[in-house]
Amino acid sequence: MNFCGQCGKPVNFKIPAGDNRKRHVCDHCDTIHYQNPRVISGCIPTVDDRVLLCRRAIEPRYGMWTLPAGFLENGETVLQGALRECREEALATLNEPKLSGIYDIPHINQVYILYRGALQNEDFGTGEESLEARLFSETDIPWAALAFPVITTALKHHFADLKQGLSTVHTDIITSRLYSLHKTTD
Amino acid sequence: MNFCGQCGKPVNFKIPAGDNRKRHVCDHCDTIHYQNPRVISGCIPTVDDRVLLCRRAIEPRYGMWTLPAGFLENGETVLQGALRECREEALATLNEPKLSGIYDIPHINQVYILYRGALQNEDFGTGEESLEARLFSETDIPWAALAFPVITTALKHHFADLKQGLSTVHTDIITSRLYSLHKTTD
Repeated sequence: MNFCGQCGKPVNFKIPAGDNRKRHVCDHCDTIHYQNPRVISGCIPTVDDRVLLCRRAIEPRYGMWTLPAGFLENGETVLQGALRECREEALATLNEPKLSGIYDIPHINQVYILYRGALQNEDFGTGEESLEARLFSETDIPWAALAFPVITTALKHHFADLKQGLSTVHTDIITSRLYSLHKTTD
Repeated sequence: MNFCGQCGKPVNFKIPAGDNRKRHVCDHCDTIHYQNPRVISGCIPTVDDRVLLCRRAIEPRYGMWTLPAGFLENGETVLQGALRECREEALATLNEPKLSGIYDIPHINQVYILYRGALQNEDFGTGEESLEARLFSETDIPWAALAFPVITTALKHHFADLKQGLSTVHTDIITSRLYSLHKTTD
């Protein structure tokens, strides 16, 4: 950030009075421009022991497989965001979605919040941001072609729970350096 | 937002190509300025059947009681943010913190994520942003003097769980219009 979004004057990067972190501060109109992590809301759509994945039609990670997920929008609840992404990317709706996990990715300032739920009428399709959508059982998951480490972790948690008949709410931290590749999504 | 933080030129509020929502767009340097909900991380510090509350020494809601909580910072995990707030506001540390709930407040673009845990050594004090910190059992909670509706909801959930010996991860949506009073925290 170089300029103040309020008044257009140059900002300074400094610790404001009463704070202990550097912020982008406008000394002209006194606006402090806080920058905070963003929430990615998404879901794990299921049919019995299978999970619905979408192949990305957009960068980053074009052509790789992912769960329906995207940045939470202002005015939405996390669940509304997760269901919107499921609709947009896989033309699908979930029955009785339940919180599945919170995954911190602190080095790119992201917090993933995922819900899981059965696909309504086992119905899905290919949304605009997807090349294809397909159901995978654990042994069929294209592990080497998953788009992001957080997706790998969430799927491993999901299948481990499935085997044990659990419905855990997971919390985990994703630290993989691979994520620096995805910084463009920020 | 009136000006582009990157180049300082005026922004337009319009739907970018390939999008379906209005954003602040700079037609000079082509930056799209996304605005997304922010995470407030906080905690429910406990000693047996009592909960630690802090009386706010800052606006909004100066003088009212709240749980230690505040905006998640870049580079932090949600739990790190929750523990930092507990340290800052109540000079306290939690033993074995566990996820307690996610509370959406969509009309002010906030997502609260709370952890609960026992106070380490039952030790606490009054941080710089607090006037006092005190332990309350359910019957002593100053319900009418709680700072925000989300705090009321989280405490009700906590005490209901306590009675039933449960450790639920709650999800709820806070819709109270009282929140418009707090818009200044945005």
